[in-house]
Amino acid sequence: MGGHRVAITGASGRMGGELLAAAAADDAVEYVLAASRTPEAVTSGDAPSAPDAVVDEGDLDDALEHHDVDVLVDFTVPDASVEYLRTAANNGVAVVVGTTGYDDAELETLESVAETVPFLRASNFSRGVAALRRAVRSAVEALPGYDVEVTETHHNGKRDAPSGTALTILDDIDEARGDAAERVHGREGDQPREGDEIGVHARRAGDVTGEHRVLLAGNEEIVELTHRAGSRGIFAAGALDAATWLVGRDPGRYDFDAVLDADRDTGDTGASQ
Amino acid sequence: MGGHRVAITGASGRMGGELLAAAAADDAVEYVLAASRTPEAVTSGDAPSAPDAVVDEGDLDDALEHHDVDVLVDFTVPDASVEYLRTAANNGVAVVVGTTGYDDAELETLESVAETVPFLRASNFSRGVAALRRAVRSAVEALPGYDVEVTETHHNGKRDAPSGTALTILDDIDEARGDAAERVHGREGDQPREGDEIGVHARRAGDVTGEHRVLLAGNEEIVELTHRAGSRGIFAAGALDAATWLVGRDPGRYDFDAVLDADRDTGDTGASQ
Amino acid sequence: MGGHRVAITGASGRMGGELLAAAAADDAVEYVLAASRTPEAVTSGDAPSAPDAVVDEGDLDDALEHHDVDVLVDFTVPDASVEYLRTAANNGVAVVVGTTGYDDAELETLESVAETVPFLRASNFSRGVAALRRAVRSAVEALPGYDVEVTETHHNGKRDAPSGTALTILDDIDEARGDAAERVHGREGDQPREGDEIGVHARRAGDVTGEHRVLLAGNEEIVELTHRAGSRGIFAAGALDAATWLVGRDPGRYDFDAVLDADRDTGDTGASQ
Amino acid sequence: MGGHRVAITGASGRMGGELLAAAAADDAVEYVLAASRTPEAVTSGDAPSAPDAVVDEGDLDDALEHHDVDVLVDFTVPDASVEYLRTAANNGVAVVVGTTGYDDAELETLESVAETVPFLRASNFSRGVAALRRAVRSAVEALPGYDVEVTETHHNGKRDAPSGTALTILDDIDEARGDAAERVHGREGDQPREGDEIGVHARRAGDVTGEHRVLLAGNEEIVELTHRAGSRGIFAAGALDAATWLVGRDPGRYDFDAVLDADRDTGDTGASQ
Repeated sequence: MGGHRVAITGASGRMGGELLAAAAADDAVEYVLAASRTPEAVTSGDAPSAPDAVVDEGDLDDALEHHDVDVLVDFTVPDASVEYLRTAANNGVAVVVGTTGYDDAELETLESVAETVPFLRASNFSRGVAALRRAVRSAVEALPGYDVEVTETHHNGKRDAPSGTALTILDDIDEARGDAAERVHGREGDQPREGDEIGVHARRAGDVTGEHRVLLAGNEEIVELTHRAGSRGIFAAGALDAATWLVGRDPGRYDFDAVLDADRDTGDTGASQ
Repeated sequence: MGGHRVAITGASGRMGGELLAAAAADDAVEYVLAASRTPEAVTSGDAPSAPDAVVDEGDLDDALEHHDVDVLVDFTVPDASVEYLRTAANNGVAVVVGTTGYDDAELETLESVAETVPFLRASNFSRGVAALRRAVRSAVEALPGYDVEVTETHHNGKRDAPSGTALTILDDIDEARGDAAERVHGREGDQPREGDEIGVHARRAGDVTGEHRVLLAGNEEIVELTHRAGSRGIFAAGALDAATWLVGRDPGRYDFDAVLDADRDTGDTGASQ
Repeated sequence: MGGHRVAITGASGRMGGELLAAAAADDAVEYVLAASRTPEAVTSGDAPSAPDAVVDEGDLDDALEHHDVDVLVDFTVPDASVEYLRTAANNGVAVVVGTTGYDDAELETLESVAETVPFLRASNFSRGVAALRRAVRSAVEALPGYDVEVTETHHNGKRDAPSGTALTILDDIDEARGDAAERVHGREGDQPREGDEIGVHARRAGDVTGEHRVLLAGNEEIVELTHRAGSRGIFAAGALDAATWLVGRDPGRYDFDAVLDADRDTGDTGASQ
Repeated sequence: MGGHRVAITGASGRMGGELLAAAAADDAVEYVLAASRTPEAVTSGDAPSAPDAVVDEGDLDDALEHHDVDVLVDFTVPDASVEYLRTAANNGVAVVVGTTGYDDAELETLESVAETVPFLRASNFSRGVAALRRAVRSAVEALPGYDVEVTETHHNGKRDAPSGTALTILDDIDEARGDAAERVHGREGDQPREGDEIGVHARRAGDVTGEHRVLLAGNEEIVELTHRAGSRGIFAAGALDAATWLVGRDPGRYDFDAVLDADRDTGDTGASQ
């Protein structure tokens, strides 16, 4: 098959660099357009992950048409992101979004984009995290009444606790139990477990990329479900998988879970071997 | 609701003792009839887990009727088991079977029993193992092409390797992948991983009750799913759950998975709190 | 060798029962005297772990002499404990103490007991926990500057957090680093790691007997050291090991670590095989 | 302090590249000379980890003197390595060696090198693995008679099983127990644990950098000690630590363990913060 033509915004940033590297390694990607506020900072030419073209983000509108882009991948910041997504929508380009922190007005803009072009947004593009979330929902449903505790570990420079992925998993657990459990962030002193509360534990240590661990315990047995990321590159690879999957679909909102199901159907694995 | 009336065969054996203790602790059980080849070895009277009545296994036929038994729980040996199940069928008593190792002729008998009365057989009655199996199937399906390795740990006196539960999990993985993978029991020397083989690792150490651990790895990330049993009592408790669930159903084969679904529907948890 | 003669106070309590069972299973113990405020509640006679004699705790003074006791094992409460230990000292009987929560005046009494008879007190009599503590000290010293986080898991009914054993391990880490680190009990919101703080995480779930886990992370690698208790009986077995080791020594304070070293020297293992 | 001047052989190879990157990031290194059979393949100039100079390995003799090198770091292949180490010895340059697989004649040459200059050789330069080994020895000594099992996990392309590091750990365990235990590489069928055998389990999956896990079990408790490498760069960083430590010492053999002790004494941590 012919590969897809992908545009990457914020290409000079850290996640932008991961996306360029992932795109270079992805056989389904035929052409990469990098857009950046500082295009001179994007390595081009001989470097292994150099894009096919680099443009200033101010020229994105023209560039999308000129380079015949199929899908735009955006991991930037909300205010810039909203502009890029509007531009993509105007050009009929599908969008994959990993940006977080939009306010309500910005979210409305995203809604209108999703009415115009295929639109997929997620807080975590790791296939493994998606698999963990499914496994957790399945276990919580199979073990009603078991106590649940969530532990996540990240590098010592991470500011927020718990992680966004842990919050997503906690929402999943609430949904599986049909109930919004109290969340306890650490315990100290005379503090026994109460009711169906969920203890949430944020370990911060060294340069750990990210580990999430869900414990279910009851009846003299435990089930523990763990995901561990080896590098931040997996999130870029997942976003590119999503981009490939999204091209050619009808306008509308899609979620990352659907990408996994599709891979299963086609036998396309993406796994390292 | 009124509780059920349960018969337990092999009551003087190790698993029989666990079943008596579990039945004594189970509010859904109203009356316990213990059957044993050595009835004098079954503690009765004041002991916390003493049954309501003890009979010689040769008198099982009369006893089932006389004590108005609803369901028989059998964890014995194949040749004896076949007799007990026939007797139960003749008396219209449901059966829960944890006995393993039947030959083909014996399995045919079991088929005919299942045509007459409600019949539920499983190799593992732990709710947590059932939940683990579901989580494993879900993860294997969500992560096509990821490498899978299975590690189980049991006490140092266990003879067979890998454990029966590990074999069941391996079958589940094959089914989820639509493919019977080569199983490699340890690696030594120049032995790289080949194709989609599954490494199976049997650790034997101390008095570990039982741990099963499934690793999925690919794309710079891993998912690891673990079950750990705290005591053998969980298998007895699960068998009693199954017995309670089975009473009053139509004749036919049922599996333990269905018991979990039912618990979820009713909100009956069974978890320790 | 001739075995030792042991007295157990608080014999009708939960830990007393564990100690009676451990003593019955310990070949180094020849005779067991149980003392209780409610001696009628102590099972005697045919039960597997029945003591050789049972007395009211008010009669302990006479009984220690009459039954020729070598060593007293006390897991009770501070005010009662102080009386029993004084009585033991007056009779020249060695003491092993697992009681916790003494006030300053009581601790002074313990000092004077230790001047008269061999005296061994510990907050945790598990051999494995002692081994974990050594391994932790060794790893902390070998990995200066690595971040440390401590996670412990106990049953959902435990009131205090973190566990006493976790506190002991935290003190060990401080000592190995020559520095009293800030201890952070959970993290929430904008709370990055600061300096050499130690995150302490108390999971409470199901009926977990007890797990302690120490994470060291830095330089793109982690070391994680874990202890998991299978049953509360291990604490009783360890106390009996200590009792056997203590008999015949000079008066003075001893600690549980010394018991482990002795076992290593003699090749006496105590491990289950 | 003034930093050290380091030569790196095999600079165009994979481990050579890791060493160049580690040297560039190491404040204790002032000057880097890269030597390669294919010097044109070594990136120089503006790249972040570019060495200060690149020479053909045939010119190593002159270059060591001309560039005033303090210490040479060699991760190459045995036959080439022997030449480089002789050249270093002739120039009075200390050597750190990570090359493996020498034959007996080559090992004799290494002996004579060590008589002339400071010489440090190791099979694994991870600080964490060294810490794990100490923790394992300490735990094995504290838990005589406990069953031991070793599990290691590496990427699916690794050919040899078990890993060299696992073999080193197994030797450590033998030494701590004063006994060469039978090593069992997987279990299958009717294969109970025998005596003090050690089960060795090699998991191969995905792109796992390397995990080593030692289980000790007995007496209803377990201790499990784990090391996990996040990237191969940790081995290069450890070799550079060793190089810095080695400069200025007397001729003779040193081992990597000594480097850790020195760091502890000086409070130099090397950990990521």
